[in-house]
Amino acid sequence: MVIDIDDPADPRLDDFRDLNSVDRRPDLPSGKGLVIAEGVLVAQRMLASRFTPHALLGVERRRVELAHDLAGHPGLPFYRVSADLMAQVVGFHLNRGVLAAARRPEELDATALLAQSRTVAVLEGVNDHENLGSIFRNAAGLDVDAVLFGPGCADPLYRRAVRVSMGHVLLVPFARLPQWPQGLRLLRDGGFTLLAMTPGEGSVPLSEAMPDDAKVAILVGAEGPGLTETVLRAADLRVRIPMARGTDSLNVATAAALAFYERVRVGS
Amino acid sequence: MVIDIDDPADPRLDDFRDLNSVDRRPDLPSGKGLVIAEGVLVAQRMLASRFTPHALLGVERRRVELAHDLAGHPGLPFYRVSADLMAQVVGFHLNRGVLAAARRPEELDATALLAQSRTVAVLEGVNDHENLGSIFRNAAGLDVDAVLFGPGCADPLYRRAVRVSMGHVLLVPFARLPQWPQGLRLLRDGGFTLLAMTPGEGSVPLSEAMPDDAKVAILVGAEGPGLTETVLRAADLRVRIPMARGTDSLNVATAAALAFYERVRVGS
Repeated sequence: MVIDIDDPADPRLDDFRDLNSVDRRPDLPSGKGLVIAEGVLVAQRMLASRFTPHALLGVERRRVELAHDLAGHPGLPFYRVSADLMAQVVGFHLNRGVLAAARRPEELDATALLAQSRTVAVLEGVNDHENLGSIFRNAAGLDVDAVLFGPGCADPLYRRAVRVSMGHVLLVPFARLPQWPQGLRLLRDGGFTLLAMTPGEGSVPLSEAMPDDAKVAILVGAEGPGLTETVLRAADLRVRIPMARGTDSLNVATAAALAFYERVRVGS
Repeated sequence: MVIDIDDPADPRLDDFRDLNSVDRRPDLPSGKGLVIAEGVLVAQRMLASRFTPHALLGVERRRVELAHDLAGHPGLPFYRVSADLMAQVVGFHLNRGVLAAARRPEELDATALLAQSRTVAVLEGVNDHENLGSIFRNAAGLDVDAVLFGPGCADPLYRRAVRVSMGHVLLVPFARLPQWPQGLRLLRDGGFTLLAMTPGEGSVPLSEAMPDDAKVAILVGAEGPGLTETVLRAADLRVRIPMARGTDSLNVATAAALAFYERVRVGS
């Protein structure tokens, strides 16, 4: 449903207004808490996801590119505007010509998610939106079925995380573990072998350690501090990436990608 | 050699002035072409590298943290300033409290570099500074001896590339291939097996394709277009990362990391 708008103050555009300053609000995601998809590719993924958008804002050229994806959503408003008006409303020019906005659906249940997963990533304290987005992109590409959140993680539905993930935060299912570290018991009860990524003592090189078990959980901590001692103790195995030249470590999303890759290599 | 400065206009600070706007100059690196290290860790790596700094600018706390690394460079000026003056000169506050500046040394010779390398990465059209920096960080961590540049690559010594690489562009040696794609002959003459990373036709999954040859070159193209057809034809093998769920591809630095990892796994 195409609706032409030429008044930047039109209240129907409010969900797309001043995104940069909205992002600076400390109360997110408890504020408006919308999920925003930027650009054709990510909007396509949103339209195919459980995050059904309630409105799109964009220029005609992008609407044409999305026509096929929009066909399945006949009542969905597409607010068609000029590029100038769009920049004015959104607050910046690099908006890729189309935005889709969705309300947050109910969170998924961890136990249900684990029941239908073979490989999961479990994150503790990954508080950087870019790293989090990259982890989802890598999970999508390297056959990880779901992402489970421990405490201290960034919001996966924050605009930057959505963008860096190339929209894969919308497609790779995720859930919060209800308690920590007790929630790890859900994994154990679900039949998962728990692998903790750590360069520390007692860790085995990744290529020697990856089990071909039916269900594997890969535990990753924040860049810098890594996983907490409690979590390390709860794991079945500690694995590390052999590092050359005394380098400190790889980026956390890259380290996770290597573990995901090794799981595909050994477990498939 | 500690030199206190309290005049922001002091000409000795010129190499550190208005870095953000200097970065916007289209003439880099042909302009001043300085290499700038930001923060203690990267400054340490610069001090240990072939990029000997000619000056540092920073606050007292960072000087203390660098004292051990500076001990080997007795004549090197450390311009000690307040945090406020530093922000004023540099043009932004997120300057990590210390900067080191080096002039560009002569470029390394590709043939000489290949002679002493076992594993190299060869980049074509990798024109994003962040991806380039990440590739160097991954190369350092995953035992790649050198990086060779084809055409269309970003400047590895650009400030953002230095920062994202965590200073590893200063430590992992690199050289430009003199001609392209004819320069690939240097690799062949040097005894390297050429592996082209491509999701395209005729490619073999990475885990089945990695040879345990004495010398391996991993060829990577830009995110999106990938390697050119000419380069693909020049390669001995085309390898791909098996991708799940019809996802397009991983980030180029992540894809490279997986190949580097596989090389360590198979070749060591």
